[in-house]
Amino acid sequence: MLYQVVLEQNEAQGISHLFSKDLARQAGSNPAQVRRDLMAVGYNGNPQKGYAVSDLIEKIRTMLCPQDGISMALVGIGNLGRAILGYFTRMKPKFKVIAAFDSDENKVGRVIAGTHCYHCNEIKPILKTQTVSLGVITVPETQAQNAADQLVAANVRGIVNFAPTPLRVPDHVYLENMHMTLTFEKVAYYARTGKHGGTI
Amino acid sequence: MLYQVVLEQNEAQGISHLFSKDLARQAGSNPAQVRRDLMAVGYNGNPQKGYAVSDLIEKIRTMLCPQDGISMALVGIGNLGRAILGYFTRMKPKFKVIAAFDSDENKVGRVIAGTHCYHCNEIKPILKTQTVSLGVITVPETQAQNAADQLVAANVRGIVNFAPTPLRVPDHVYLENMHMTLTFEKVAYYARTGKHGGTI
Repeated sequence: MLYQVVLEQNEAQGISHLFSKDLARQAGSNPAQVRRDLMAVGYNGNPQKGYAVSDLIEKIRTMLCPQDGISMALVGIGNLGRAILGYFTRMKPKFKVIAAFDSDENKVGRVIAGTHCYHCNEIKPILKTQTVSLGVITVPETQAQNAADQLVAANVRGIVNFAPTPLRVPDHVYLENMHMTLTFEKVAYYARTGKHGGTI
Repeated sequence: MLYQVVLEQNEAQGISHLFSKDLARQAGSNPAQVRRDLMAVGYNGNPQKGYAVSDLIEKIRTMLCPQDGISMALVGIGNLGRAILGYFTRMKPKFKVIAAFDSDENKVGRVIAGTHCYHCNEIKPILKTQTVSLGVITVPETQAQNAADQLVAANVRGIVNFAPTPLRVPDHVYLENMHMTLTFEKVAYYARTGKHGGTI
């Protein structure tokens, strides 16, 4: 989480306390939002001195990382899927990659980037028996909704979608889209035109 | 861009016109923001019929994609950098990957994922002579600010940063952060707690 990064940078610089306004500026947020967010973490700053940097880091770390790590599963082992698997399997024990899925028979049954690969048909039976916090979708856009449906059916309640298409999920599932192509196009557009802002 | 994806889905379903409120709902925005954004594209809807879907798609496509493609350069050829290179070199002529940079001597001088790899010291001399709209940073966080500084010095005005650290860039440069680890942690947290919202 961004606060954690910002706080660790301050700690590294020997700063022991921070006010919400400083934290907001550094995190690109506003003081009221910072106070709300940190109240959700169960942490209130001292009005005179601000937030105690190292205490807050510890509090956030405990909250974000369950003792047994964040368990994740990935659907779609193309180039991007492979990169994500490689990256997160090296982040043990913080992340624990449970399984990867693909519909390509040449991949099924193999260990790819450190993770056992199953067929997409097996998402529900394989994941249903474990607690998986995070499902990552890296299939082509035509298969993304189906992948999301399977993850939801397997009780996965958090999804990160890299396919450039909007997905429908039930209200109890948290969906975050990471649309690389769209982001790259947007940044290039702003770079060329100098127009910054809006949701284009 | 997200509007483009939403519009193409409507076009595929044979829908010829859309009102800003429909477009807003499908794009997860609000009607006023949609009208502002599309005015920036130079397109006004017809109050009776809404926006003409295929005209608008064409207009956005022309605006977002310069005739000679979006030229990009990448700094940091690890797992993620390699995946991004592989993905975007296949997206010719929309994207044109100009060069990749790494400080590892074993990579310098080689062609990796279809792209010539140069030393990080060469960012400025190599990129200065061309127009590069987009610089992508996939180095470890300790090297990210230096990569950003080099890209800025080489006149790159749009940066996508994958390193989990905030970067400082001048006002004329548009910076977008894609923090995968932070996003994954956040989604897993929401999935576990059922708390959706806030900037944690």
